[in-house]
Amino acid sequence: MEKKMNLLMFSGDYDKALAALILANSAREMNVDVTMFFAFWGLFLLRNPETFTLEEKTVYEKMFSMMTPKGPEDLPLSKMNMSGIGKQMLLEMMDDNEAPHLSDFLKGALKKGVKFRGCKLSMEIMGFKQEEMIPELEIVDAKEYLKDALEADMQLFI
Amino acid sequence: MEKKMNLLMFSGDYDKALAALILANSAREMNVDVTMFFAFWGLFLLRNPETFTLEEKTVYEKMFSMMTPKGPEDLPLSKMNMSGIGKQMLLEMMDDNEAPHLSDFLKGALKKGVKFRGCKLSMEIMGFKQEEMIPELEIVDAKEYLKDALEADMQLFI
Amino acid sequence: MEKKMNLLMFSGDYDKALAALILANSAREMNVDVTMFFAFWGLFLLRNPETFTLEEKTVYEKMFSMMTPKGPEDLPLSKMNMSGIGKQMLLEMMDDNEAPHLSDFLKGALKKGVKFRGCKLSMEIMGFKQEEMIPELEIVDAKEYLKDALEADMQLFI
Repeated sequence: MEKKMNLLMFSGDYDKALAALILANSAREMNVDVTMFFAFWGLFLLRNPETFTLEEKTVYEKMFSMMTPKGPEDLPLSKMNMSGIGKQMLLEMMDDNEAPHLSDFLKGALKKGVKFRGCKLSMEIMGFKQEEMIPELEIVDAKEYLKDALEADMQLFI
Repeated sequence: MEKKMNLLMFSGDYDKALAALILANSAREMNVDVTMFFAFWGLFLLRNPETFTLEEKTVYEKMFSMMTPKGPEDLPLSKMNMSGIGKQMLLEMMDDNEAPHLSDFLKGALKKGVKFRGCKLSMEIMGFKQEEMIPELEIVDAKEYLKDALEADMQLFI
Repeated sequence: MEKKMNLLMFSGDYDKALAALILANSAREMNVDVTMFFAFWGLFLLRNPETFTLEEKTVYEKMFSMMTPKGPEDLPLSKMNMSGIGKQMLLEMMDDNEAPHLSDFLKGALKKGVKFRGCKLSMEIMGFKQEEMIPELEIVDAKEYLKDALEADMQLFI
């Protein structure tokens, strides 16, 4: 019988998103069904830098939109970010080991059939619009997340 | 058959506590059995600001009691807190969307029958007394947490 | 039937590692099978301060090796670390309650048969060598982690 994994992506950190997407890709290669549910800061990973807009937003939503990361490569590290120096160092170390970057793992996950779900309430509070996100993202509410997670064989809050 | 969810609340951040309590409330509305176990910084959420005391505490416990958040609305954000400016901005954005605040979700969870458990060892180390916490909190040890979590259909560390 | 717990150790914080090792020790005392999988910052906990080396490392790996914690007692707090003052305060409060320190819980977990696994890719990117880690650590890849976690009764991302 097919196994299921559900990841709740809350943090919006480069390193945590990297770990989660490596797990998601590996799980798909093992034929495990994978859902990733993005809430709060986690949604920054799925912003499409090319459809960024300030239209029809309140003043706070505009400020918030401008101050926060716009897509995968823009995310900070959870530790030792040091205004980006620590992150640059980690990226160089990844290159030395020919490890793909975050956006590569994201593309891989999309191609391999990982399901991408976004939290409706978080989208509303942050003022993000559907068209500002990657097209594969489906917006659902907390109950739809819970239904999926409760049926899964493992769940992580990342 | 009734499903069970167990959340280990470790972080003591406003945004993470908000996410957890939204999940807890939604789960109860779906008739899912919910236990929240509060350890370390997570216990700050359940301090009762009105029964705060410095009596019978060591010097370190007094300092610690004074320097740390006293109840739900006092918690910082996990990111972009910026000495409270970022949090104020998020609260304004929540108000614009008529989203309830953390203390509302906490009251909702208590009313809906979410079980609140606190970590005995954390309480002892931090010098918190039972009467300084919300009355619904039951103090248990790590083994009682594990027994509940191992029987649940999903567990998250938040 | 024997229950199984799987902990993914990502963070490398003193307080989170303490919580995880208390759970691991308690679970073993309840005869629960425990695997801890260390990735990214989590690996700092298992560095052996006595076999620290800069040989055969790139410039970035050397810098990274020197700037990061070297073993359990060197880890910072996830909150209120305040350049070590907050951590010192917490340690004094633990001593006042005769609570063991992190390295004691680590020794306990090793003695009680907790399985220690390290993430292969993280080791390569950070430039850590097997002989720089505690001897009980077995290096595995993401798929081996997933296989174990999917069979477990509970999984946490810490």
